[in-house]
Amino acid sequence: VILAWLTDQLIQLTPDLPLAGRRVVVTAGGTREALDPVRFITNRSSGKMGYAIAQVAREFGATVTLISATTHLPAPSGVKVMMVDSAQALLTAVSDVYDATDILVMAAAVSDYRPVELADQKIKKPADHADLTLRLTETPDILKTLAARKRHQYVIGFAAETQSLLANANRKLTSKKLDLIVANDVSKPGVGFNGDTNQVTLLRPQQQPVTTELATKSVIARKILTTAIADGAGKQA
Amino acid sequence: VILAWLTDQLIQLTPDLPLAGRRVVVTAGGTREALDPVRFITNRSSGKMGYAIAQVAREFGATVTLISATTHLPAPSGVKVMMVDSAQALLTAVSDVYDATDILVMAAAVSDYRPVELADQKIKKPADHADLTLRLTETPDILKTLAARKRHQYVIGFAAETQSLLANANRKLTSKKLDLIVANDVSKPGVGFNGDTNQVTLLRPQQQPVTTELATKSVIARKILTTAIADGAGKQA
Repeated sequence: VILAWLTDQLIQLTPDLPLAGRRVVVTAGGTREALDPVRFITNRSSGKMGYAIAQVAREFGATVTLISATTHLPAPSGVKVMMVDSAQALLTAVSDVYDATDILVMAAAVSDYRPVELADQKIKKPADHADLTLRLTETPDILKTLAARKRHQYVIGFAAETQSLLANANRKLTSKKLDLIVANDVSKPGVGFNGDTNQVTLLRPQQQPVTTELATKSVIARKILTTAIADGAGKQA
Repeated sequence: VILAWLTDQLIQLTPDLPLAGRRVVVTAGGTREALDPVRFITNRSSGKMGYAIAQVAREFGATVTLISATTHLPAPSGVKVMMVDSAQALLTAVSDVYDATDILVMAAAVSDYRPVELADQKIKKPADHADLTLRLTETPDILKTLAARKRHQYVIGFAAETQSLLANANRKLTSKKLDLIVANDVSKPGVGFNGDTNQVTLLRPQQQPVTTELATKSVIARKILTTAIADGAGKQA
């Protein structure tokens, strides 16, 4: 606690930190789409990459809000944390703070689909042991929704793919009006979900891709934010 | 580390501990059924109840194996941990050790259903944004499979329900040939998944139900194991 307080005082006394005065919002973790009160669909995101970015943004002097769909990681010191569950809850939380955000980092792995129906009670096995059919429908497209409201915000997205990585990431960069997309091939060992390391390719409009070494998520977080800062990320006109 | 070593020495020097010489297997956490390399269906189990039981069984002098579908909890000291993912993997792991088990505690929340098809690559959104249909089929019934092989084992199951709790739990007690079932109503605040507290009803064949107070999962773990010990749990003939 004392160390956290000292760190905070230091950050406030160091106005030349690269993100001093900037408001950074980071989403993290895998959202959950409930089938019933007990079961849900989710994904392998651990939240570690988003938490690392929130921590580095704070160390760089930003005012940081972490919108987290992951509950078991310790909150980084000096960062405001809001917990969310579903894609819809994440959209509402980001939407509420978006106008007052300078840099948005969408590191959360947002569920693309949710069950059409949410059962009130735990679904019991049918007595005849028959197969079940689950109807799924698209969740709201958060980046697309926000793209329509974009003003000064510098928006960083993520693409986690198992094939056609750069093609998929480039398409997302353009269609969602992103300033930077972090592409990672989650089928590679040591890359992407759950681990403490990552290797990513940073794509920006009209610029050459930059591929990092395999490194800790903290090192990757620094690389992402320094790249954004070099672009003048989130400076109001 | 030193404390863990001292605890272990103490346990070995105390042969009159209630589970000395007994081999206890505990399953914990929510299993995951993959849709593709990224997405899966799971449930709200945190693994905390199973981990608490494994720890108390160790303190009671047992040789403990924890078969865990949860990755983010610290392993209890002196307990052998095996990580598993799906219901099928859990069945394989439990089946391998079952004959040499005296007390089996099935605290894991095992997925009832898995997708019929597992995609090799991450499923992309269809271009027309159409709804998706997911076919689900039953996973192996682990307790039923083991019931056919039951000899001296004392088997403890769990029933997490949102309605008709005791009726569902009693049916499971009988049909799965359990010695004890721990029933909890996961729709109540402070009960069941994720929290650090629980309130349960213990059901045994031909005996009155015992309902505990709302208490920490560690206290509930002690109550479950002392009830089993009073039944002479897992003593070989």
